[in-house]
Amino acid sequence: MSKIERVAVVGGTHGNEFTGVYLYRQYQQKPQSVSRDSFSTELVFANPRAHGENKRYCDHDLNRQFAVADLENPELTSYEQSRAKAINQQIGPKTNPRIDFVIDLHTTTSNMGATLLLLQPGEIYRKLAAYVTMKMPEVIVIRDLDHLPREEHRLLATTGKFGVIVEVGPVPQAVLREDVYQQSHQMTQHILDFLELWNTDQLPQLPETVDAYRYTESLKLPVDALDNRLGMVHSNVQDNDFQPLHPGDPMFQCFDGTVIKYEGDDTVYPGFVNEAAYYDNNLAMSLHEKVVIDTYQAD
Amino acid sequence: MSKIERVAVVGGTHGNEFTGVYLYRQYQQKPQSVSRDSFSTELVFANPRAHGENKRYCDHDLNRQFAVADLENPELTSYEQSRAKAINQQIGPKTNPRIDFVIDLHTTTSNMGATLLLLQPGEIYRKLAAYVTMKMPEVIVIRDLDHLPREEHRLLATTGKFGVIVEVGPVPQAVLREDVYQQSHQMTQHILDFLELWNTDQLPQLPETVDAYRYTESLKLPVDALDNRLGMVHSNVQDNDFQPLHPGDPMFQCFDGTVIKYEGDDTVYPGFVNEAAYYDNNLAMSLHEKVVIDTYQAD
Repeated sequence: MSKIERVAVVGGTHGNEFTGVYLYRQYQQKPQSVSRDSFSTELVFANPRAHGENKRYCDHDLNRQFAVADLENPELTSYEQSRAKAINQQIGPKTNPRIDFVIDLHTTTSNMGATLLLLQPGEIYRKLAAYVTMKMPEVIVIRDLDHLPREEHRLLATTGKFGVIVEVGPVPQAVLREDVYQQSHQMTQHILDFLELWNTDQLPQLPETVDAYRYTESLKLPVDALDNRLGMVHSNVQDNDFQPLHPGDPMFQCFDGTVIKYEGDDTVYPGFVNEAAYYDNNLAMSLHEKVVIDTYQAD
Repeated sequence: MSKIERVAVVGGTHGNEFTGVYLYRQYQQKPQSVSRDSFSTELVFANPRAHGENKRYCDHDLNRQFAVADLENPELTSYEQSRAKAINQQIGPKTNPRIDFVIDLHTTTSNMGATLLLLQPGEIYRKLAAYVTMKMPEVIVIRDLDHLPREEHRLLATTGKFGVIVEVGPVPQAVLREDVYQQSHQMTQHILDFLELWNTDQLPQLPETVDAYRYTESLKLPVDALDNRLGMVHSNVQDNDFQPLHPGDPMFQCFDGTVIKYEGDDTVYPGFVNEAAYYDNNLAMSLHEKVVIDTYQAD
């Protein structure tokens, strides 16, 4: 069992997700609110320029720049590629990280509620999921987001030894909502409490299992040959993140009045439904399968 | 009674309000859907560059550039100031407009539902409000938005002889929601139907009165001496557009835990609560008073 000695709480990885930026500022003013006796905590404002310009990113999505090969590639020199190298220096290096646990604060325009994204398997993640959902039963857990070995993961939170994403919505880009702000703060506090209990071997009896979701694929909006969108997310799916989507259910409403149905073989669970930031790639939603995490059993 | 001979339907005045842009494209493909026997309709894509950059505007808010003095000022040369002059040439000139009626399609991140903004007093507006709310009882009517003579109005929709804003939310910037798209389309269709009935003297018996709201003032978020925000819209007000805010009600939640209460003398009705685009000016919400429009009685 590895002890967590150094934690990083990161805000503003995406510049127009205001909640993390404002939490970062509050934590800066009250550092004791994010530290605990058994570990120290550093605060990182990941993409200040994008926040200043009120954009997700300036040149490239910062949260896709943390694969080891990219961090070590001197030819990647855009603003975010450079920020990734600087952050890697600050909390990594990813190949042998100084920071033991990264909490990266994000928001979404999708109706995902308070979501905890576990990026890798492992005992600490299983117990964290059990602890957080015991304290905040409304929290949705997503595990194994990218299905990649840690070195190939492109997300900032994989730059520490361990790391998670706190993802809360719905909130428009560039907006602070009190409910989303408070939920993000609460989940962060529970994660920090967990790490303290983990370090001091004082974890309470945890639920034996945790219901979770596992990402399977992304669905694109219908487009024509010139990549013009032909439709939008159907109102039956809008706001229904993590509700079952059955084969044959309406999925897209085309502008010409036709409806495109979900044609998979199995019932799936959409997330990031109609997330504004994914429009760049015409992504409509992510699909997940339901899984169960056995808290006390190796993955 | 003036006959409406030429109508303009405008989308994309704000580049990141996608609904109007996609409706514009649909109407372009099916021009018959926005024309009627008694008038012709032109379509205007107001700010294509801002839409391409997925921003509200590039240099200046286009929807604040239509005061006659500004349109006639050759020293105002930014992208949006130039677009305003071009649009004025297309649908104005504002001092003697070619277009009789402008419908400008907007969305908001606030929970305002389907809102019809009447910018000036007059018989056509009173009857339009009565007709639209008879057809769509959920529609909220706001009147006399800027309290200015038409020449001084800065909004695009005042460039025609008459004009209204269709404002629907909540929808994040850069997102298409089916419900918001359909409501915007429906309200536009009812307005066009009204103009046809108005022109042909076939208006049905309308409700005698229409409940409406009249803008009184804007409230700013609490800030420190350096303009840093000290708080956010209180969760009691968030999403409660057009619900009463009484003297003494919580209004802002400060990050330090304190609550700022509404200290006005009268009950007011907030709108544009926590609208993302108004953050540039630290605006938190607009306040309105309740008014009643007498459909058949001069203002």
